[in-house]
Amino acid sequence: MKARAGLINTFHSEIETPVFMPVGTMGTVKAIENRELDEFNTKIILGNTYHLYLRPGMEVLKGANGLHKFMNWNNSLLTDSGGFQVFSLSSLKKVSDIGVTFSSHIDGSKHLFTPEKVIEIQRVIGSDIMMPLDECLPYPSEWKAVSKSLSRTHNWEKRCYEYFKNSESLYGYEQNLFSICQGSIYKDLRRQSMEVLSELDFKGNAIGGLAVGEKNEVMYDIVDYCTDFLSKEKPRYLMGVGTPVDLLECVERGIDMFDCVMPTRNARHGRLFTTYGEINIKNAKYHNDFNSPDEECRTYTSENFSLAYIRHLFMSKEILGFQLATLHNIGFYQNLMKNIREAIKQDKYLEFKKSFLEKYLSKN
Amino acid sequence: MKARAGLINTFHSEIETPVFMPVGTMGTVKAIENRELDEFNTKIILGNTYHLYLRPGMEVLKGANGLHKFMNWNNSLLTDSGGFQVFSLSSLKKVSDIGVTFSSHIDGSKHLFTPEKVIEIQRVIGSDIMMPLDECLPYPSEWKAVSKSLSRTHNWEKRCYEYFKNSESLYGYEQNLFSICQGSIYKDLRRQSMEVLSELDFKGNAIGGLAVGEKNEVMYDIVDYCTDFLSKEKPRYLMGVGTPVDLLECVERGIDMFDCVMPTRNARHGRLFTTYGEINIKNAKYHNDFNSPDEECRTYTSENFSLAYIRHLFMSKEILGFQLATLHNIGFYQNLMKNIREAIKQDKYLEFKKSFLEKYLSKN
Repeated sequence: MKARAGLINTFHSEIETPVFMPVGTMGTVKAIENRELDEFNTKIILGNTYHLYLRPGMEVLKGANGLHKFMNWNNSLLTDSGGFQVFSLSSLKKVSDIGVTFSSHIDGSKHLFTPEKVIEIQRVIGSDIMMPLDECLPYPSEWKAVSKSLSRTHNWEKRCYEYFKNSESLYGYEQNLFSICQGSIYKDLRRQSMEVLSELDFKGNAIGGLAVGEKNEVMYDIVDYCTDFLSKEKPRYLMGVGTPVDLLECVERGIDMFDCVMPTRNARHGRLFTTYGEINIKNAKYHNDFNSPDEECRTYTSENFSLAYIRHLFMSKEILGFQLATLHNIGFYQNLMKNIREAIKQDKYLEFKKSFLEKYLSKN
Repeated sequence: MKARAGLINTFHSEIETPVFMPVGTMGTVKAIENRELDEFNTKIILGNTYHLYLRPGMEVLKGANGLHKFMNWNNSLLTDSGGFQVFSLSSLKKVSDIGVTFSSHIDGSKHLFTPEKVIEIQRVIGSDIMMPLDECLPYPSEWKAVSKSLSRTHNWEKRCYEYFKNSESLYGYEQNLFSICQGSIYKDLRRQSMEVLSELDFKGNAIGGLAVGEKNEVMYDIVDYCTDFLSKEKPRYLMGVGTPVDLLECVERGIDMFDCVMPTRNARHGRLFTTYGEINIKNAKYHNDFNSPDEECRTYTSENFSLAYIRHLFMSKEILGFQLATLHNIGFYQNLMKNIREAIKQDKYLEFKKSFLEKYLSKN
């Protein structure tokens, strides 16, 4: 049992871990206001470098003195390097040791991301935690392809590190750079990756390349393997994960930080996370069900509106439906993380996990 | 100068007049939360009987014990009779003295609205202020057609009044019924309409059939004419109006209540009301304009976000753009009404109007 509670301090906030970071792709966590994120004591959110680079673009972000000021977010920001979106969203991408050229998914315009460039962009964004450029392979990939890609990723990460060390924050506060361990589901490659990266003094260590199609048990196993090697002194961040069950399993295996579009994206599809599992609010059975969607997880949504009302909003395609569902799901995730932290501090993590899952999975 | 400040008391709230009622068509003022309406001290909103009747429908509204409970709105609700939407939205409508049959704009299903039926529906909705069924003619219409229609409308309103008097609230609180004066732009018909309707003891009097295409000056003139005849003791409600300028002109002519989709609908099209006029936030000139959209009308939006940021949200089709624009426009309207009420009480209405319009129209 490697669950642990800790603190990350950035210029903008003190972040209690384990922490879930809502995804604010383009300078907004979709369909929720900053002050509503504050209601759940959200101390850090994530921005996507690829999206922000394309829109609003560097000129606007620089003019605004960074993303914090642009979106008026006063807590911490973590940005990815853009690599994942380049590999998943853009067409006509071409990878070489220099970097990756790609076409914008918006207007087809051509761009080049190098390790140095993505640090430069994140300097303009002004994120508290920056991520280095890495190559994101599809799943599954052969050992040999992963091994070859790993050399390139390590080279890119080193160049990011050097460029980071030799450049300065534009807005007068400290930014931090994490590493990203790759290696797909191959433990020997994961180990090699962690060893290479541990030679540089990154401020935290991320595990990338998981939750891309492999089975959950495989992901948990790789996480478990990695956290035995990653520094105990530094935050460990599992990128792009996950469901409430994933969070519980991976906290147990020593992860401190998570991000995922799931609570926000599912909300916009009418899928609400509740104490008794995920529900589809559009289901006809909620037509005249005037109960709260979640009596046990209290949010503005669950305290004020019924299943029938929220269903009506979704059936009528009312924007308020997206708002209320998003607010509830973010609340559900942040409430879960708060309970996780408290349970760890009270040395009752496994009991908490068991009792949470008993309810959460009871209707499956 | 007939501007006047007053109070309307319903079971759910005390409403200071002149009042602007945001439109909550289907059980939500689009893209804004109830608690945000409260920020602007909103004491009454409007619901549309036609829309609510079709979705969520009577069974759900009855099951919820009315619209207040369904949408968790604790202040007052006014509902129209559905007539206006039947005449403007539905196809295959057929009008007779009995009522109007129409096809749903959603699924084509056939329905009949009679005067009795629309009262019955509004009993189920549980609105604090109900409106009677009236025939809404297009503009322009010939005197003869309007005159003929007027007889039908008066007959329908009388039947509404009778049915209202002989039926009871379903939820234990008092509901009120207003009259609607019609007559298009013909003063003799308007006068006839007001005389006929004044024979019954409606709780308030609405002016319908304006803001349907006639020139503003014509509308103001008809309003001015009507308010000379309408009871001084009862609230006067100008339906479906209007721009900030319309509100100022019609308050001056003795109107107490307004409703209009303009602040909410325009918001969703990126049009923001500001102290210095209406702006289109998508305009390229706001690309890197980091000023507040309105330094002088303070809302969560204008206090926290720049023109450039809100523009970015609209260009990126982010839901938060709709939220922030809606919130600001509702705030702008409610702030205007508050200032109007204060100016009237201080006997400075015309000065206030002049100074408001000097700024509001300065960039035209």
